Amino acid sequence: MSLEEEVLRKLRPRAGTVRRLEEAVERLKRSTDASISRSGLDLRTMLVGSVAKGTYVGEPDIDLFVLFPEDVERKDLERVGLRIGQEVLGGETRYAEHPYTHGEMDGFEVDLVPCYEVKDASQIRSAVDRTPFHTRFVLSHLDDGKRDQVLLLKQFMKGVGVYGAEAKVQGFSGYLTELLVLRYGDMRGLLKAASGWKPGMVMDMNSVRRSGGSAPLTFWDPVDPKRNVSSALSLDQFCLFVHAAREYLRSPSERFFFPRPRALMDLDTIEATFRSRGTSPFVVVLDRPDLVDDNLYPQVQKSQLGLRKLLEMNEFQVLDMSCSVQKDVRMVFELVSAELPPSRLHQGPPVCTENADDFVSKWRMSGLGQPFMVDGKWMTYAKREHRDPAALILAKGREASLGNDLRELRGLRCFSGTKAYKTGNRRAFTHLLDRREPWRV
Amino acid sequence: MSLEEEVLRKLRPRAGTVRRLEEAVERLKRSTDASISRSGLDLRTMLVGSVAKGTYVGEPDIDLFVLFPEDVERKDLERVGLRIGQEVLGGETRYAEHPYTHGEMDGFEVDLVPCYEVKDASQIRSAVDRTPFHTRFVLSHLDDGKRDQVLLLKQFMKGVGVYGAEAKVQGFSGYLTELLVLRYGDMRGLLKAASGWKPGMVMDMNSVRRSGGSAPLTFWDPVDPKRNVSSALSLDQFCLFVHAAREYLRSPSERFFFPRPRALMDLDTIEATFRSRGTSPFVVVLDRPDLVDDNLYPQVQKSQLGLRKLLEMNEFQVLDMSCSVQKDVRMVFELVSAELPPSRLHQGPPVCTENADDFVSKWRMSGLGQPFMVDGKWMTYAKREHRDPAALILAKGREASLGNDLRELRGLRCFSGTKAYKTGNRRAFTHLLDRREPWRV
Repeated sequence: MSLEEEVLRKLRPRAGTVRRLEEAVERLKRSTDASISRSGLDLRTMLVGSVAKGTYVGEPDIDLFVLFPEDVERKDLERVGLRIGQEVLGGETRYAEHPYTHGEMDGFEVDLVPCYEVKDASQIRSAVDRTPFHTRFVLSHLDDGKRDQVLLLKQFMKGVGVYGAEAKVQGFSGYLTELLVLRYGDMRGLLKAASGWKPGMVMDMNSVRRSGGSAPLTFWDPVDPKRNVSSALSLDQFCLFVHAAREYLRSPSERFFFPRPRALMDLDTIEATFRSRGTSPFVVVLDRPDLVDDNLYPQVQKSQLGLRKLLEMNEFQVLDMSCSVQKDVRMVFELVSAELPPSRLHQGPPVCTENADDFVSKWRMSGLGQPFMVDGKWMTYAKREHRDPAALILAKGREASLGNDLRELRGLRCFSGTKAYKTGNRRAFTHLLDRREPWRV
Repeated sequence: MSLEEEVLRKLRPRAGTVRRLEEAVERLKRSTDASISRSGLDLRTMLVGSVAKGTYVGEPDIDLFVLFPEDVERKDLERVGLRIGQEVLGGETRYAEHPYTHGEMDGFEVDLVPCYEVKDASQIRSAVDRTPFHTRFVLSHLDDGKRDQVLLLKQFMKGVGVYGAEAKVQGFSGYLTELLVLRYGDMRGLLKAASGWKPGMVMDMNSVRRSGGSAPLTFWDPVDPKRNVSSALSLDQFCLFVHAAREYLRSPSERFFFPRPRALMDLDTIEATFRSRGTSPFVVVLDRPDLVDDNLYPQVQKSQLGLRKLLEMNEFQVLDMSCSVQKDVRMVFELVSAELPPSRLHQGPPVCTENADDFVSKWRMSGLGQPFMVDGKWMTYAKREHRDPAALILAKGREASLGNDLRELRGLRCFSGTKAYKTGNRRAFTHLLDRREPWRV
């Protein structure tokens, strides 16, 4: 039996699970229909997503959509949609582009989502309106063999770490995975093609261009040809997938699908790694704002880039960085040195300008040496204000370009030197230092 | 008596000197005429330069030109010119664009120079052919009052350190100084105007444009309007003159004309200065090639820039540099640190390229940690080859962009840390660290 056949056996849902799932879906539909009747409206429901398509791997999440006619006002759609959700699931209200209800049915997670039933996917009023079209498109093209290939590919992407369009992953969505299997026939066909991909690929179901795209990968949606299904995919995740495809084809292994869990590095190893490189760690800890991941991660990324820029503007050389979001936000920076000289070279105005004299008289008194000319500009050695990164971030961190909900740097604490290794940063340091690909862990 | 009147009294030649000089010039002319007669040719001589114009400050150098008709072949001009020089001075042959004779007459230095007598300064065959035109132009415009102002301005420029068009100085030539006095009336008029100059000034005897020039200062030659008299002037020397003009007008002092000699810094002060800044010295010593200054200095400057670039390409941060040419060539660099970490971040190829796999397999084994992706490219920590600048220059210095006659780095020795302070570098360090303007020493 081939490796992929073996993996598939683990991925195909058990008969028992399928039966329990079908029963739960039936119960959910009946319960929703009853609630719709009580509302006095005439609404259809539609099962969508991976359960509808039979393409789920692992625990299935049930997505049931309630379809509203286009003449219903948006606020009524939301009000009625949420009331139905409450009656059926009693669960919690969540927000994407518009609100929906999340709950449970017979042990399965459920999203009950109101949407508009539009004529054409290019006419949608909210992103969720497109989902029924996706479900219909995939169902009408998928046979059992291709369904197996979708399972394989999804698990491959999960194992490699590129599955999911959410901000935390910036990888491949489930729908994109399905389209890629339809496009390339099976997982191996896709991996062979992907081995030769370069950023800038542009394709649809029938044609492909090897460059020119503004995103790493552009896949025009067959139900809405102006929309890029792959817009969430980041450059590095695109590259990781291409790299994984090459390595898998060269030596296939179950590790690509089921990687070993990555152990946290111990403090001695962390310290020894920095010591062998002669580099310095610097850790910034922040309170975690109360946001959903899709809002939080982009803000954390933006903030870390902003702090990096601030460090670099102040002459700290940042070699690498990483972060970890758990109970709090922990950013790790790897620096050439966490201590800068007591002086810095300070550039003044061009010599032949009005304010040059003020600069010279000021720094003649307060500089570490006399001002001098370089390429027509005054220069001087000045006392450095912040010799270590912690002092800099504490004093000026709030002036950096930060995510909206991190602008106050609430709970800010900074650690460098040996203190950085302690204080519970093993996860962030492991992210930074253990760069083995998941299949090599 | 005004400051400038007092300075002038020191500058005007003593009556005794004038008489001795006139006698020496007469003897030189007679002797040259006699030598010309013996050659059987009919040639005129012409006294040129600052002695002819009465604009010398300090010890006068006599410049006597022998004017050849244009139909004489160049090699004959050189042969006859040098023979006359030999007969008259018995001195040494020197080379500018073509050879001339340098010697002495009654204790004065003399240059005896053959040139072509051309109709128009735009028709010259060699740069020296222009000199008679310059002498005639200045003589026909200078009166005694302006002559005094030339003396003042020349001494001001000498004191400030911007007098001389030679490569070592890159400042103002004597002729340019005379033109500036003719143009602006007197030294103060010029200094007032110069206080507002910016690099890019363009002028001739009648008009001025405050910007647009490709050189810091463009002064179109009145005897050859396509030639910039000021082409040798560097940006920093232009700026230093503008700065000096401002400071002199604000508080005039004899120190601008007659600066105190600059003492060499002692080793303790040198070391303390570096220590207070937290920076590191690095010294490169080379044998001095046997070249005249005008050939040597540009090569030294080019070589030091080349070595700086090599240092920076290898991640040494160069803050400042200076050099001193005496018995040997000594270059001093001020570095943020003369020791780099044992590792360096090494950028590899884009992930999505053919040779990416080779990079990854190579560095997976030999890197200080696993390769990782940043913005679609592979990166790795690599062992640094040269952690100190001396090792780098010894190993790769010859690959830097160097002056032709320094290409072999003959006599190369490098010093960093405490060794840099010793070994006779006080002059080079004083250049680097004592940045007081000459009038403030």
